[in-house]
Amino acid sequence: MIKQKKEISLAERPIGIFDSGIGGLTVFKEIRKVLPHENLIYLGDTARVPYGTKSPEVIRQYSEINVRFLIEKGVKVVVVACNTASAAAIDHLKEHFPDIVVLGVIAPVVENLIKLDHVQKVGIIGTATTIRSGAYQRAIQDKIRVDILVQACPLFVPLVEEGILDHPLTMQAIDYYLAGIKKAGVDTLILGCTHYPLLVRPLDYYFNHRVRIMDSAYYTARELKKMLADGRVTNPSRDPGTESFFVTDSVDTFRHTGELFLERPLTIIEHV
Amino acid sequence: MIKQKKEISLAERPIGIFDSGIGGLTVFKEIRKVLPHENLIYLGDTARVPYGTKSPEVIRQYSEINVRFLIEKGVKVVVVACNTASAAAIDHLKEHFPDIVVLGVIAPVVENLIKLDHVQKVGIIGTATTIRSGAYQRAIQDKIRVDILVQACPLFVPLVEEGILDHPLTMQAIDYYLAGIKKAGVDTLILGCTHYPLLVRPLDYYFNHRVRIMDSAYYTARELKKMLADGRVTNPSRDPGTESFFVTDSVDTFRHTGELFLERPLTIIEHV
Repeated sequence: MIKQKKEISLAERPIGIFDSGIGGLTVFKEIRKVLPHENLIYLGDTARVPYGTKSPEVIRQYSEINVRFLIEKGVKVVVVACNTASAAAIDHLKEHFPDIVVLGVIAPVVENLIKLDHVQKVGIIGTATTIRSGAYQRAIQDKIRVDILVQACPLFVPLVEEGILDHPLTMQAIDYYLAGIKKAGVDTLILGCTHYPLLVRPLDYYFNHRVRIMDSAYYTARELKKMLADGRVTNPSRDPGTESFFVTDSVDTFRHTGELFLERPLTIIEHV
Repeated sequence: MIKQKKEISLAERPIGIFDSGIGGLTVFKEIRKVLPHENLIYLGDTARVPYGTKSPEVIRQYSEINVRFLIEKGVKVVVVACNTASAAAIDHLKEHFPDIVVLGVIAPVVENLIKLDHVQKVGIIGTATTIRSGAYQRAIQDKIRVDILVQACPLFVPLVEEGILDHPLTMQAIDYYLAGIKKAGVDTLILGCTHYPLLVRPLDYYFNHRVRIMDSAYYTARELKKMLADGRVTNPSRDPGTESFFVTDSVDTFRHTGELFLERPLTIIEHV
């Protein structure tokens, strides 16, 4: 991971997590579940959110700034808790920061998909930039032969951020984007955006509980846990891990919507 | 307006217009209609769009960068073609750039509202930051006594940018936000966001054609025309004015949605 300093062992260093805004909190939440003793630092780039409608060039530029911030905080690993940044910037970040491990949210879900039986037709939904990048499509087709249907769903992020999760409008938006995928009869649906886990219930309902819904947050947290164990850098502490949140725009908005995502109060948030 | 250089008269200089992204094109379009011989420079801050969900501090910072860019292009006046930036930053910009006239989109529509007869109950819709700023409310209540109902409509911008203008989803979103305002029986509705003119038909339909809908783009363009005439700096040219578009993110996305707004092809767009 990164070169060890004297004062604090690599294992004791925090895990850095960044997202364009609050969506990455779904990944944060899963990481906290499986790694209760790790110290977590979360950075939400709320001054430049969203990434999903922006160009890969601009996303690479913003992601680089985010990783640099986390490295300065002394993290042992960086989790790119944003599908758009993972799709557009992961190779760039790995190349640009060779001394630190950078984990995106796309590879873990794909690694798990290919292990499953009876996968024939996969739907992938995400932001415009994620879908356009073809990152999921390439990652899957490099490994297995399945039919893939993709759909960008730009209204889902604002719906989630507005907290419109259980309203006729939610179902109408789902039908607007997913009628084609439903008709095509997919067996698996990948939620290729960290906001979408908040829509898992209406999505499950829409597909009559018959489609396997895969959420990248879940698999990324488990991959991270394995990666730390394999590298022998799991934090040996028995205390609950600390948590710090940093945002590039105002703290208040982040707190409000962030609590919807984490389903608990957010403590220390700092503007940077 | 600004200090005159030797080479080109003040009147011949271009008009600068900026917005967080493409919404300001509705203002651009109205300006072009009433001022066909002016040279227009448009800046869309697409790398940081949207402004409507961000804090006033961050919006002031971005607006300052935008105005500086336009001043460097030699404009004679700056039009803030964004309600959120007008609400959050207009006083700051006027103070920060005392040598150039800065025209926002809020004052012109309010000036026209107060001249109307039979205004008793006014609805104002806009982004979260515009509504929260209270800029419209203060501007109106400083002049006349009317009932004011406000509503932030965060889904309208993504709906418009997705081109979902005539779909059950459009009407459902309108009803989600405006049922209260409709029930309260407003006589006038101010579209306090430069994206909303694209929703004027479904809005008019929703209110059974019984509500006066006021669009800030229309009044801002007319105010600008008057201001140039009063200051004797209308461009004396008889040729069609030139047009340049600058964006801070990729040109392609802007072109696609921009043409939806302008209802004609966009020619020269430059990334800055």
